[in-house]
Amino acid sequence: MIPRYSRPEMVAIWSPETKFRIWFEIEAHACDAQAALGVIPKANAEAVWKAKDTPFDVARIDEIEAVTKHDVIAFLTWLGEGIGEDARYMHQGLTSSDVLDTCLAVQMTRAADLLIADVEAVMAALRMRAMEHKYTPTIGRSHGIHAEPTSFGLKLAGHYCEFARNRERLIAARAEVATCAISGPVGTFASVDPRVEAHVAKSLGLAIEPVSTQVIPRDRHAAFFATLAVVAGAVERLATEVRHLQRSEVREAEEFFHAGQKGSSSMPHKRNPVLSENITGLARLVRGYAMPALENITLWHERDISHSSVERVIGPDATIALDFALMRLAGMMEKLTVYPARMTENLEGLGGVVHSQKVLLALTQAGLSREDSYAAVQQAAMATWLKLGQPDVKSFAENLLARPEVGAVMDAKALNGVMDPQLDFRHVETIFARVFGDA
Amino acid sequence: MIPRYSRPEMVAIWSPETKFRIWFEIEAHACDAQAALGVIPKANAEAVWKAKDTPFDVARIDEIEAVTKHDVIAFLTWLGEGIGEDARYMHQGLTSSDVLDTCLAVQMTRAADLLIADVEAVMAALRMRAMEHKYTPTIGRSHGIHAEPTSFGLKLAGHYCEFARNRERLIAARAEVATCAISGPVGTFASVDPRVEAHVAKSLGLAIEPVSTQVIPRDRHAAFFATLAVVAGAVERLATEVRHLQRSEVREAEEFFHAGQKGSSSMPHKRNPVLSENITGLARLVRGYAMPALENITLWHERDISHSSVERVIGPDATIALDFALMRLAGMMEKLTVYPARMTENLEGLGGVVHSQKVLLALTQAGLSREDSYAAVQQAAMATWLKLGQPDVKSFAENLLARPEVGAVMDAKALNGVMDPQLDFRHVETIFARVFGDA
Amino acid sequence: MIPRYSRPEMVAIWSPETKFRIWFEIEAHACDAQAALGVIPKANAEAVWKAKDTPFDVARIDEIEAVTKHDVIAFLTWLGEGIGEDARYMHQGLTSSDVLDTCLAVQMTRAADLLIADVEAVMAALRMRAMEHKYTPTIGRSHGIHAEPTSFGLKLAGHYCEFARNRERLIAARAEVATCAISGPVGTFASVDPRVEAHVAKSLGLAIEPVSTQVIPRDRHAAFFATLAVVAGAVERLATEVRHLQRSEVREAEEFFHAGQKGSSSMPHKRNPVLSENITGLARLVRGYAMPALENITLWHERDISHSSVERVIGPDATIALDFALMRLAGMMEKLTVYPARMTENLEGLGGVVHSQKVLLALTQAGLSREDSYAAVQQAAMATWLKLGQPDVKSFAENLLARPEVGAVMDAKALNGVMDPQLDFRHVETIFARVFGDA
Amino acid sequence: MIPRYSRPEMVAIWSPETKFRIWFEIEAHACDAQAALGVIPKANAEAVWKAKDTPFDVARIDEIEAVTKHDVIAFLTWLGEGIGEDARYMHQGLTSSDVLDTCLAVQMTRAADLLIADVEAVMAALRMRAMEHKYTPTIGRSHGIHAEPTSFGLKLAGHYCEFARNRERLIAARAEVATCAISGPVGTFASVDPRVEAHVAKSLGLAIEPVSTQVIPRDRHAAFFATLAVVAGAVERLATEVRHLQRSEVREAEEFFHAGQKGSSSMPHKRNPVLSENITGLARLVRGYAMPALENITLWHERDISHSSVERVIGPDATIALDFALMRLAGMMEKLTVYPARMTENLEGLGGVVHSQKVLLALTQAGLSREDSYAAVQQAAMATWLKLGQPDVKSFAENLLARPEVGAVMDAKALNGVMDPQLDFRHVETIFARVFGDA
Repeated sequence: MIPRYSRPEMVAIWSPETKFRIWFEIEAHACDAQAALGVIPKANAEAVWKAKDTPFDVARIDEIEAVTKHDVIAFLTWLGEGIGEDARYMHQGLTSSDVLDTCLAVQMTRAADLLIADVEAVMAALRMRAMEHKYTPTIGRSHGIHAEPTSFGLKLAGHYCEFARNRERLIAARAEVATCAISGPVGTFASVDPRVEAHVAKSLGLAIEPVSTQVIPRDRHAAFFATLAVVAGAVERLATEVRHLQRSEVREAEEFFHAGQKGSSSMPHKRNPVLSENITGLARLVRGYAMPALENITLWHERDISHSSVERVIGPDATIALDFALMRLAGMMEKLTVYPARMTENLEGLGGVVHSQKVLLALTQAGLSREDSYAAVQQAAMATWLKLGQPDVKSFAENLLARPEVGAVMDAKALNGVMDPQLDFRHVETIFARVFGDA
Repeated sequence: MIPRYSRPEMVAIWSPETKFRIWFEIEAHACDAQAALGVIPKANAEAVWKAKDTPFDVARIDEIEAVTKHDVIAFLTWLGEGIGEDARYMHQGLTSSDVLDTCLAVQMTRAADLLIADVEAVMAALRMRAMEHKYTPTIGRSHGIHAEPTSFGLKLAGHYCEFARNRERLIAARAEVATCAISGPVGTFASVDPRVEAHVAKSLGLAIEPVSTQVIPRDRHAAFFATLAVVAGAVERLATEVRHLQRSEVREAEEFFHAGQKGSSSMPHKRNPVLSENITGLARLVRGYAMPALENITLWHERDISHSSVERVIGPDATIALDFALMRLAGMMEKLTVYPARMTENLEGLGGVVHSQKVLLALTQAGLSREDSYAAVQQAAMATWLKLGQPDVKSFAENLLARPEVGAVMDAKALNGVMDPQLDFRHVETIFARVFGDA
Repeated sequence: MIPRYSRPEMVAIWSPETKFRIWFEIEAHACDAQAALGVIPKANAEAVWKAKDTPFDVARIDEIEAVTKHDVIAFLTWLGEGIGEDARYMHQGLTSSDVLDTCLAVQMTRAADLLIADVEAVMAALRMRAMEHKYTPTIGRSHGIHAEPTSFGLKLAGHYCEFARNRERLIAARAEVATCAISGPVGTFASVDPRVEAHVAKSLGLAIEPVSTQVIPRDRHAAFFATLAVVAGAVERLATEVRHLQRSEVREAEEFFHAGQKGSSSMPHKRNPVLSENITGLARLVRGYAMPALENITLWHERDISHSSVERVIGPDATIALDFALMRLAGMMEKLTVYPARMTENLEGLGGVVHSQKVLLALTQAGLSREDSYAAVQQAAMATWLKLGQPDVKSFAENLLARPEVGAVMDAKALNGVMDPQLDFRHVETIFARVFGDA
Repeated sequence: MIPRYSRPEMVAIWSPETKFRIWFEIEAHACDAQAALGVIPKANAEAVWKAKDTPFDVARIDEIEAVTKHDVIAFLTWLGEGIGEDARYMHQGLTSSDVLDTCLAVQMTRAADLLIADVEAVMAALRMRAMEHKYTPTIGRSHGIHAEPTSFGLKLAGHYCEFARNRERLIAARAEVATCAISGPVGTFASVDPRVEAHVAKSLGLAIEPVSTQVIPRDRHAAFFATLAVVAGAVERLATEVRHLQRSEVREAEEFFHAGQKGSSSMPHKRNPVLSENITGLARLVRGYAMPALENITLWHERDISHSSVERVIGPDATIALDFALMRLAGMMEKLTVYPARMTENLEGLGGVVHSQKVLLALTQAGLSREDSYAAVQQAAMATWLKLGQPDVKSFAENLLARPEVGAVMDAKALNGVMDPQLDFRHVETIFARVFGDA
C-alpha cells in the first residue's frame, strides 16, 4: 500500500523485520520441541535461542535470496552463518510452508487485533456523538426523500451497531486464521512429530490446523478477506452519510475544516467532504481485494503456490487500507461539525408533510376509511409540496384542515397534537438501551 | 432473470425456440456445405431444409434429453424423427460445441443489437432534454458542494457522450463474439472441411474463428460481459444524478409521478425516485456478472465445460437485466420533470460564493497577488457561508466590497460584471457542437 | 435460477406462495400483538387468522399489483377482500419494509438451514469415503508435481474439515440474517410499539433488530452472501481435485459412469468429469453474486431501495445454485469410482524419487552435511527423473547407492527402510482423530 | 506494487518524478496557449519553460504538501519559488483536476504502450515455438480427457490468437484514456478558453475530452482496467496450460530448470512450475483491480474524489503486475522445455481410443447406422480403456476388429488408414495461415 494510506502500526506487521522475527520464533520453538523429543540435540535448540536479540540484516538476507531464489533458505543460511555449526539441525523435518503459513497466521491475527481496535475507536466516537445528539431532531430520509423525523443520535446508534457487528465478525475472522501448521511436505507428519506442531502453536498463541497439506487451507484466508470487505462496507455507508449531510443543500454536518485550510485551488469558497470521499474509495479497494482471496481457495491437490503472489500483495494492502480508513473515519466522526439548527430547518422545510403517517393513522382511528384517509392526506401533502418555495404555499396542516372530511373529525388543536414531533422520540430511550445498554 | 426485470424482446433471444431455430439453421447450412463438397448426398441437405417451418416441440425434445442426457443429441433425434432416413448424414463431422458455440454467438450478437438500440434510445432522450435545457442555469457540484454554475443541458450532454462511447463499446463487443466455429472435437478440422465453417459463418453473418479448440475462446465472451459492466456503470451514474436531483433538499428534477400513484403505503406524502434506485441495483447485478465471465477464460487444455453453467445463467441474465435497465432509463429521462426555478433558487442559495473563482482571477488580473486574492475571496466567501440561513447574512459581493484590498481595485459594478452568470455559458455552444455536431 | 440448476426444496422457499404465507404470518402476529396492546380490536386479529388456510391467489394478487404498483398493498388488498371489514386495522403502524425485510429474514434462514443440511450431506459422503480409503496410498502433489506419499483418506479428510468449517460459517451466517424489524418508516417506532416487533420476532424464531431504519441493515445480508461465496470455494476445490484425478494421464478416480451413458456425441470413447466441471461453473456464479451484495451495504440515509432489485435476483439465485452444487457434489463423492491400483502405479511412476526428503534427512542424520546430502539426493533423483520412460532408467535407490558418499553411510537395506512408504502413514490415525474424533 | 513483482520501466511511469515532469509540461504548454491568446504575458510562458531541465525536488515538494495539504498547489509553489515572479500567471484558469486527469491520461497511455509491447513479446515467443512445433503431435484434451490428436504448434497458435486479440483490445483501451481536459472547475471553460485545451492536448498527443466536468469521465478508466482483466485471463489460461503439461503424470513440457536450481527446501527431487503459478496469482490480482475501477464510474454530480484513492493504488498496481506477468510469461514460453517423445507416449497411452471419431465416421460411411456404429466403437473403446495398465489389455484396433459388425465392413489395413494420425494434421497449414498469414 502506498504511504499516503498507511499507518506505521499496520505497516510494521508486514515489514521484513517482523516477518523474520516470527520465522525465527517458529524455528526456535520447533527446535525446542524437537530437542524435547530427542530428535535433535538440546544444544542445538539452545544455540538457536542465543540469536534472539540479533537484529535481522534484511539486505544481507535479500542478497542470499538473490542467489538461492528461495526466501526461507536464504533466511536459514543467514541465521546459520551467525549461530554456526550448532544450528545444523534447525528446520529439520520442516518444510518452508510450515514456516511461511504459520508466520502469515501470526501476521494476520496481529492485523486483526489492530483492526478490532480501530473498529472500537470508531465505536467510541459514534457512541460519544450519539449520546450528544440523542434528542437532536433531524429528518429521516428514505429514497433521499424526507420521510419522518428521527434523532441524529439514532442515526449514529444504527451505525454504532453495524460497527459492533463488524467487531464480532473480525473476532471470528481472527479465529479463522489463527492456526499453525508444522506438518511437512504434504501434511502427513512423515518427518516431523505432531507434538512439534502442538508446541509451536501453543507458544505462538495459535490453534493447530487439523489437516494441513503443506499449506493451511485457503478458505480461512478467504473468509478473513471477505470479512474485511464487509467491514469496508460499513465504512463506506457512514462516509456516504456524511457526504450527504455536507451537501450544499443539506449542510447538516461537515467534516472539520480548520482555519487555514484550502478546499480548492481555484474556488476559494469550497469546503469539501474529502475525507469521506477518500475512504469511500478505500472501501472499494478493500472490496476488490476479496475477489482474488476467494479465488485462492481452489489450489491444486495438496497445494500450488498461486495464492502466494496474491497474498504478498493483499495481505498488507487490504489490512493497511482498511486500518487507515477506519482510523480516518474515527477521527472524522469525533470532530464532525454538526448543525442542529440546520437540521431543524430542513426538517420543517417541507411544510409539515413529513408527519403524514401520523395524520393518516389518526384519521383512520377517527373513523375514516383507510382509502379516504390516504387520499385526503396525500392531496393535502401534495398541495403543500408542489408550491414549496412559492409565496402562496400553505402548510400541510392548513391544507388538511381546509378539507371537509378532515375538518369533520379533527380540529387544529387535535391535529397539532397528532403532528407533535416529540411523538417520534418516545422510543429513543428503548433503542438506546438496546444499543448501549441501560447505563 | 425474473419476469419483473425482463422485456419480451430480449427474453425471446434466449428462448428454447430461438435456440432450436438457430441450431437448425447451423445444421442445415452445414449440410448444404457438406453436400456441395460431396461429403453427403444433396438429397440429405434438401431433406433437412424441408423441416424449416416445423415448429419446435420443446417439451418432446426435453423428454428425449431426459433420456440421452445430451441436449444436442436430443435435438437431432427429434429432428431426425421428423425428417426420416434422409437426415442420416446431418451433423456429420460436427461436434456438439460447433453447434452450441456458434448458436451462442448468434444469440449474443442479437442481444448486442438490442442493447445498442437501447443505448440509442437513452441517447435520443438525453439529446432531446439537453437541447431543451441547453441554457437552463443550474449549479455544478464537485464533492456534493456547489462549485460553479453550469447548464442542465451541459450535464445531460456529458451523459450523452458517455452513452455514445458505450454505443461504440457495444459495437466492438458485438464484433468480439460474432464468430463461428465448425472445426470438430479439438479444432483440427480432422473430420470436417474448413469450407463448411466458412459457409455456415457467411450464412449466419459471422466471421470464422481463426483457432477454435472445440470451443470458441472465452476471452471473447469475457470482453463482452465486461463491456456490459461498463455500460451498467453509465446507467448507474445517470440514475444517481437523478436520485440526487430529486432529494428533498434539492428538488431540481423528479421522476414522473402520475396522478393516482402512491409513493409509500404508510407515508402519503412520498414521491420517491424508485426507478433510478431500481436500476442502480440492476447495474450492480450486471457488474457482478462480469466476474464469472472473466474467470471463464481459463479453460483447461482444449476446453472444459465449466463455462457452460455460467453462461446458461449470465447469458440471459446480464443481457436481460441491462436491456431492462436501459429502457427504463430512457423512458425515465424522456419524462423527467425538471424544475428550472428550483435550480436557480439553489444556484443562488449560497449568496453568490459560487462565483469565487471568477472574482479570484479578476483580483489577480487587477494586480493583487494570488495569495492575497485567495485570502480575500476565501474570507469573504466564508463570512457569507457561515451565516447562511441567518437573518443578518450578507451576500458574497457585499462582503467582498467591504474589504479594503478589494474595494481598492474594484467597485460594485465591476464586481457585478465579473460575477455575471452568462460568463459561465460562453462556451456552451462549443461544447454542444463537440457532442451533437454543428447542426 | 434456471430449472436445470434448481432443486424444488430451495425453489419453494422463494416461491410467491411461501412469500405470501410469511407475509400473512407477520401481519397476523402483528395484529395479535396490537390487539394485546389494545391498539386494535381483538376481533380484528381473530378475523385475520381465520384466513390462514386460504390458498394464496398469486395471479389475482399480481393483477392488483399491476394497478397499485405496490406489492404489499396488493397483497393486503387481496387479503382484505377475503376477510372483509374486520381486517381493517391489519398492517396498522407497519411500513411495507417491516413485512418485506422480516419475510426475507425468514426465507434466508430457511435457505441457510437447507444449505447446512447440504453441507452435512457432503460431509457424510466425505467421511464415508475417507474411512474407506484411510490407508489407500496415493501420491501427494504440490505444484502438480509428485511430492510425498499420502493416503487418499487423508485427502478427503482435509476436504471434510473444510466443509465442517463451512458448516460453522453457515450457522453464523444464518444468525446474521435471522432478525426481525417492525419499527415503522424510519425505525423510530413512532407509530408502532416495540412490543409488536418483539412478539412477531418471537413467533417467527427471529431476534429483534436493535436498530432498523425502515430496513434491516444490509451488512447482514452481505455477510451472508459472502459466506456463500466461501462455501462455493470449497465446492470448487473438491470438484477441481476430482477433475485432476480423472485426467487421462492420472485416472485415479472417476465420476460414476453408468452403463448406457454417452460421454460425447462425436467421440464414443469419452468419459468426462462433467459434474465437477458443472459445479465449478456454479461456484463462479455464487462468487459473483457476493459482489452486488457487498455493494448493497451502502444505502442512502435511512434506506434507499437499490438493494431490492439485487436481492430479488440473488436471493434465490445464489442459494439455489449453491444448494444444487452441494447436493450434486455430495452424490458425486458418494458414487466416485476410485482406482487404488492406479494410485499405486502413479505413486511409483517416478522411480522412487518421491521419497527424497526421507533420504535427505537420513543422510543428514548419518553425518553428511545438509549441503552434501541435498546435492547427492538431488543428483540421484534427477538422474532417474530425466530418463523416465526410457529403457535404461535406473531407480532412485540404485542411483543413490551408486554414489560413494551415500554408499559410505548407508546400504541397500538401510535405504529400503528409509524409503518404506509405511513411514508416511504413521500419523494418519492422529490426523483422523483430529478430524473425526477418536470413535 | 511490491518490488518483487515490479519492472523498472513500468514503475518509472508512476514515479513522482515522471508525474511532476508531466505536470510541468501541462502547465508550460497551457502557458504557451494562454500567451498566444494574450491572456498572460509571453514572458511568463517563456520563464516557465526555462525551468524545464530543473530536476524535481520530490522531498521539498512533499514538505510543502504537508503544509498546504494539496499536491498541485505544493508543486506550483515549489516551481514558482524556482522561476520567481515571472511565473505568477502559471496555472491561471486551470483547476487542479485539469492537471491531474490529463497527467493520468499520459501515464495510462504510456503504461498501455508498455503493455502492448509486452503482449507483442509474448506473441513473438508463441509464434517462434508454434513454428517449431507446427507438426509435433500431441493429444488434444477436452474435460482433461484425451480427445483427438492435435499438434503442439496448433495449441500455441490458439494462444497466439488470444494475445493478438488482446493487443487490439489494449490499443482500443489506450485510445479510451488518451484524452485531455483543461476545462475548469465544472467543465464550462468559464475561466479558460477551449483553445488552451486544444493546444495542450495536441502537444501531449492526446485527444480532447468532449465533455469533462472537472474530471475526465471514469467510464474510460473502467474500460481500461476491465481490459487489463481480460488480458490477465489470457495470461492465466496459458500459465494453466503449462502447469498441466508439467504435471508429473503428463511431463510434456516444463519451465526451464537451470543447473543449480532448488525446487524445494525439503524435497530435492522437485521441479515445480512456479513461474506459471506465480503469474496465475498475479492474474487474480489484476482481475480484482477491475472491480473498484468499475465502481468508480458513478461519481456524484460533476465529480467527487472517491475515484482518486482507488486510482492512486490500482493505476500503478494493475499495470505493474500485468507488465510483470506478461514479461515473465514471455520469457517462460521462450525457454519452455518441450518433450515431444513424452507427448507421443501420452497420445498413444490410451491404446488408440482417441481415434474413435474417425472410426465412427468411417463405419457410418461404410453403411452401418449411426447408432450401431456408436455402440460398436464405444464398446471397443471401453474394452481397451478399462484394462489400461493391465497385462492383457488389447488395443482399440484389436477390439474393433474382433467385433463381427466391424470386421464385416473393414479390415485391419483399412482401419489403420482410418486411424492414421496424419489425418489430424491435414488442415494445420490452413489454420497457421489464418493465424500467421501465408508467409
